[in-house]
Amino acid sequence: MKIVVLKFGGTSVGTIEKIKKVAQIIGNYKKKNYKVVVVSSAMSGVTNELLKKSNLISENFSDAEHDVLLSTGEQVACSLIAGRLIHNGFKSRSWLAWQIPIITNGSYKNSRIYQISKIKIIKYLKDGGIPIITGFQGINLDQRITTIGRGGSDASAIMLAKFFKALRCVIYTDVEGVYTTDPNKLSKAKKIKVISYEEMLEMASLGAKVMQPVSIQDARLNRINIEVRSSFVKKSGTLITKKSNIKNNKIITGISSTHNDSKVTLVGVKDKPGVAASIFKPLSKNSINVDMVVQNISQNGKETDLTFTIKTDDLNRTKKILKDNKNINFRKLVLEKDVSKISIIGVGMITTPGVTFRMFQALANKKINIKVISTSEIKISVLIDKKNSKKALDVLHNEFKLDK
Amino acid sequence: MKIVVLKFGGTSVGTIEKIKKVAQIIGNYKKKNYKVVVVSSAMSGVTNELLKKSNLISENFSDAEHDVLLSTGEQVACSLIAGRLIHNGFKSRSWLAWQIPIITNGSYKNSRIYQISKIKIIKYLKDGGIPIITGFQGINLDQRITTIGRGGSDASAIMLAKFFKALRCVIYTDVEGVYTTDPNKLSKAKKIKVISYEEMLEMASLGAKVMQPVSIQDARLNRINIEVRSSFVKKSGTLITKKSNIKNNKIITGISSTHNDSKVTLVGVKDKPGVAASIFKPLSKNSINVDMVVQNISQNGKETDLTFTIKTDDLNRTKKILKDNKNINFRKLVLEKDVSKISIIGVGMITTPGVTFRMFQALANKKINIKVISTSEIKISVLIDKKNSKKALDVLHNEFKLDK
Repeated sequence: MKIVVLKFGGTSVGTIEKIKKVAQIIGNYKKKNYKVVVVSSAMSGVTNELLKKSNLISENFSDAEHDVLLSTGEQVACSLIAGRLIHNGFKSRSWLAWQIPIITNGSYKNSRIYQISKIKIIKYLKDGGIPIITGFQGINLDQRITTIGRGGSDASAIMLAKFFKALRCVIYTDVEGVYTTDPNKLSKAKKIKVISYEEMLEMASLGAKVMQPVSIQDARLNRINIEVRSSFVKKSGTLITKKSNIKNNKIITGISSTHNDSKVTLVGVKDKPGVAASIFKPLSKNSINVDMVVQNISQNGKETDLTFTIKTDDLNRTKKILKDNKNINFRKLVLEKDVSKISIIGVGMITTPGVTFRMFQALANKKINIKVISTSEIKISVLIDKKNSKKALDVLHNEFKLDK
Repeated sequence: MKIVVLKFGGTSVGTIEKIKKVAQIIGNYKKKNYKVVVVSSAMSGVTNELLKKSNLISENFSDAEHDVLLSTGEQVACSLIAGRLIHNGFKSRSWLAWQIPIITNGSYKNSRIYQISKIKIIKYLKDGGIPIITGFQGINLDQRITTIGRGGSDASAIMLAKFFKALRCVIYTDVEGVYTTDPNKLSKAKKIKVISYEEMLEMASLGAKVMQPVSIQDARLNRINIEVRSSFVKKSGTLITKKSNIKNNKIITGISSTHNDSKVTLVGVKDKPGVAASIFKPLSKNSINVDMVVQNISQNGKETDLTFTIKTDDLNRTKKILKDNKNINFRKLVLEKDVSKISIIGVGMITTPGVTFRMFQALANKKINIKVISTSEIKISVLIDKKNSKKALDVLHNEFKLDK
């Protein structure tokens, strides 16, 4: 069967008019003789509205009931989409997670799909029906409703594509695709036609707006081709696929930047085993996410400096934890708030020497000072002053010819 | 097990504050060692909001999807109630129709409960839990969501009381109980402490605001004691029970009045078999509800006059149907818009002679003219000028000492 999975996000089904538009898009696939499996999120705003209610009921609202409550959002959207398709003359119906069923494991609010029963949906597809499936949810082995913590409806779509061996999973959203960099920050940013899972994962700060990284990872593991495209503009989007499917790789595919980071340097830390762990353990326990970590070579064999970045929102808590914790010894704490992490990402850099040099040279030419450097196989990140962030994006976009 | 079923209507759970109040009421039953089964409607306004959406999607929205859509309303209310009970330290959870399951038959939008599986709920009650069950819905044998056409959540509550052999079914609503007559029309109307099913059914025009007649009928058939009381005021309500449970029956229990009726008289109808049927068939086909019907004795053996009442909203359609239908022969059509039906209801009248006379005399004393009379075993209805309606309520309320 030529199955495609189409996933519609909250903004794509945010109003009645948009739902009518979505039904047209679905109908067009059906007319091209695809077997169409649809997954929908809740209409935008609805989930927050429900969350607000639960918070008013209790600041510590039951996790299990939270899932019962929130799952209604997708149910409403799916019944309306199915209703519109029926209105348009198609055979369609909503399928709720318990009807299929979609089985999850893990805890409430944070479950993961581990099994989707195929028999009913396959039969329905063979009968010419268009199933509209509630995203973001499943049931557990106790037959209770669960919601999918990470990835939400994207994760549902990827898993449906996996279990139904779909040709493609199309993520309809409010952007036209993935861009070389954030178009709001750099107007000459260009839509990327095709990108590898690995690059997409590294472009988290861009990618998160389009798709949750956990879903990209799931797609990568299951080799599912994802197309990200707009529900509102009839243009081809971005294909996320495996490296070997991509011909003519550019050296660099995209550039990401962060703008809420802070730099923390502990000066005069004892240079002995276990010191780094003693610093990061209390931070991790307090859910403070540490990003770039750099430790300089010890100058005298006794003391060293340790630098890392965190979200600026976590800065005060971090300061308190470091100062209060008697196990952490350092001479001085240096904090810097207005920093920005710029990353260039591309599988091409693996086989192309000199990328690091070109990046540093390009920044140096614009007199942009690099504070911290960190690299992975397909990404080079540098920390710079936030005020230089836009200039850096611009010069690197030109350097690697991303607008070509 | 000492089981009580508590049902909360839409206005009772209309806001977060009201849901908190409802959770207190439920908790109080639990503290008195009852096994409490709760049924809830959707928060008031929600169902209409959902219906509006479906109408915008299609004027002919799918019945099956209508049920999927509307059932979310009760799901939201139940999760919030359960969440509040958990917050208050009770063991509670929402139970959706498919989880129990509650099995219905009949068509979408208009199904009826025919089986409720007891095993899971009984186990949960024995474990000390308070189940919060979605009213107004079930699933059919195709495992699809259905809604209960007539009676809604009241019907769910009665059926739960039946299957779980509850001591009592308490209907929490926005009125304090059933009154001798509508308190908005007659301020001296008194709350009735106890009333029989039969009287309650006859008091449809009063009763409908409190409970759907179909649910009262279900309660009667299954001998379920119903208490109707307010969620907002801590006062005892009205007990609806079987006649033999009621001591010291009054002759008359209540008085109802209608105020949107019209009288239709066909003058000079052929007096032969099948004539009445030929008149009422097209009305029935057009869903026009005919209430009081009176046919005078034929004066000359050839012609007669036929009078009946309908809702004034249906008057124009009725006129058109009667005039357009060539099978209906009459000399003249007399329409009267501003009429009111006054009914006195009471099981006591079966054994008490002279009630009819007392009613007519009391009205005559106030110079109120009676246009049409119709009687049943426990009800006497008269049609009068609408302008006399309040005066008639008042004089009859006094005559039968309903304020005592």
